[in-house]
This record gives sequence, structure tokens and C-alpha cells, in this order.
Amino acid sequence: MQLLKDKILREGKALSENIIKVDSFLNHQIDPFFLQEIGREFARRFCDEKITKILTLEASGIAIALMTGLELGVPVVFAKKKKAATQKEKIYKSTVRSFTKGETNTITVSADYLSQEDRVLIIDDFLAMGEAALGLVEIVRQANAHLVGIGIVIEKSFQPGGKGLREQGIRVESLAIIERVHEGEIMFKE
Amino acid sequence: MQLLKDKILREGKALSENIIKVDSFLNHQIDPFFLQEIGREFARRFCDEKITKILTLEASGIAIALMTGLELGVPVVFAKKKKAATQKEKIYKSTVRSFTKGETNTITVSADYLSQEDRVLIIDDFLAMGEAALGLVEIVRQANAHLVGIGIVIEKSFQPGGKGLREQGIRVESLAIIERVHEGEIMFKE
Repeated sequence: MQLLKDKILREGKALSENIIKVDSFLNHQIDPFFLQEIGREFARRFCDEKITKILTLEASGIAIALMTGLELGVPVVFAKKKKAATQKEKIYKSTVRSFTKGETNTITVSADYLSQEDRVLIIDDFLAMGEAALGLVEIVRQANAHLVGIGIVIEKSFQPGGKGLREQGIRVESLAIIERVHEGEIMFKE
Repeated sequence: MQLLKDKILREGKALSENIIKVDSFLNHQIDPFFLQEIGREFARRFCDEKITKILTLEASGIAIALMTGLELGVPVVFAKKKKAATQKEKIYKSTVRSFTKGETNTITVSADYLSQEDRVLIIDDFLAMGEAALGLVEIVRQANAHLVGIGIVIEKSFQPGGKGLREQGIRVESLAIIERVHEGEIMFKE
């Protein structure tokens, strides 16, 4: 997606080889019209899949998933990182390590909002080590739902997450794939 | 907003006098078309205010703020509950207690995304004790930005948050105001 690559080159900051910051439009400040374009692109790529539900992880995934849900006309469910006091019903859960934040979270989804009838598209902002995506895949499996694929805004192909998911036969659509970061310069895979 | 009240009565669950769960359309599963209506209503109420930025708090506020930002055509900034490894720049911060989750968080906003030029609308899902709203108001003040008002989806008027904010002269617009919860029945303020 050229619009996204241009935006990353213009506004993204490579803090290190592993950390690319896109806080100006995705992870802290959100540009609604740009997110709308992202949602449209995911909807275009997955439009034939009869998706019934979009699954993402709080917090950064919510905006992207919502705009995709708006385009596809389906509800969005976001996995929660901690069990809230109000969550007492049957839940699916898995564990996700965040290398960026240096912490491990249990993520949960209420069984009320994901069932074996569902055709699920997982949406997330970044794909690097693949921990968040794998945690969400595990939740889809616990629900016996059908996983249609995974939509990622920015994949870092020099980290093993995407490869591992594709080797499992999962369809992964990344709108921008970063192949290499060298001395602050971001290079995309063509 | 009648559409919202109807939805709360149909799908909301009063777990106790203080906890009203709207996980089916707002806090866990999100209904994109319903959120679009919420965004339109906030945009209608604040359309004359020349808003330049919407401020909310991760995670539940993001979807509401995004749909409002889409309608008003302005960026959304969400305060983060923890300082991420990628956050090294100048920040505004305050402290927010969550009575529902029984925890206290430091919330932060990068100074890159809020300035004294901004006319800010704060958006959040619930207003009860007012802790989250007060934390966000404090951040707007630190930025020397102009606070236009606060848009809340569900206010619980039997808790003191809304009263306290209005006594400070802050414009608070709540789309549904719950006056009382009695034996599982939710009663709205007219």
C-alpha cells in the first residue's frame, strides 16, 4: 500500500533496528482519514471471505479493526489484556509477550462474542515476533471459529513472526513490509 | 440519545449498583455502525467549537474518539496507561484510579501531539467518579491547550464525577445519563 509506505517514510522514526515508531498516525495520535484508507484496503483484500467478526488486541489494534469492521459491516471484538472486575463469564485466554514493552500479558475474550459460527479476521498494527498474532490465533482456535486470515499494517520481515504464521498455512496480508532498517533508514520489501 | 438508551436497556447488564456492563457494543465487542452514530452525535453537539484535536484514554475510549474524529475531521490522541519503551520524548502525565479495575495508572501523552494551539474535546466511554476525565483535563492544562468540553457516552449521575467537572465550569455532554440502578433495572435521567 503505497500511501502507507509514504507515510512511514515521512513520519516514522526508526529508534533502533527493531523499534519503528509511528506514533504520529497509528500508535498514539490517530489520523482518522488515513485509518479509513487502511480499513478499506483490508476490506478489499478480504472481501470474498464472508467474514463475520474482526478480532484484535487492545489498545493499538482497536482503531484499525474498527475502520475495517465499518467497511466490512461486521462487529469488532478486542481481546483484553487483563481480566476486569466486570468479566465473570466464560472466557478464552492465551498469553502474549510484548518485546517492546518488556512484559507478558494474559489476553482474554468472552465466549459470548466468538463462536464456532464465526469467520474471523485478525487485525493488528505490527507483526514482528508474532506473539500477539499467535495469542489471537489461539483464541480463535479455542472458540472453534474459522480463521480467515490476519491483516497487519506493518510487518517487519527481518523478525520471524510472519514466516512462522505463513508456515502454519495462515493467510497473512501486510500492508507494508519492512525488510531492513539500516542507520535509521527504513527499507521496504517490494 | 434515544438510540443509545434503547441499546443500554436491551443489551446492558447491571452487575451491581455501580457496575453497568455494555460489553456487547462498547467495551469488548464494538458495533461499528452504532459507534458511527455516537460519533455523529458528539460531532453535532460540538460542531461550532472549532475543535482541532480529540483526546481520550486507551483502551475503551479509542473507538468512540475515532468515530468522532472521523466526523469532525480532526486527529485523535489517546493517552497511554504505561510508558512504553518507545516513549522517550517530552510528555504530559497524570494519575488515574480505576475503581472498576481496582488499579492506579500513570497516563501519558507526548508533547508532540498536544500544544497550546489546540482546541481539545475529551471523549470517554463512562463517567462515574470522574477520575479518567480529571486525568485527561490535567493533561490538557499541562499542554496549555484550550479545553472545549467533555463528551461521555454513559454518565452515572449517582456518582460524583459529572457534578465535580461541571462545577469547574467544564461543559460535559453525556449521551445517556443513568440516574439509578435498582434491582438490575436501569433508570435514566430525563
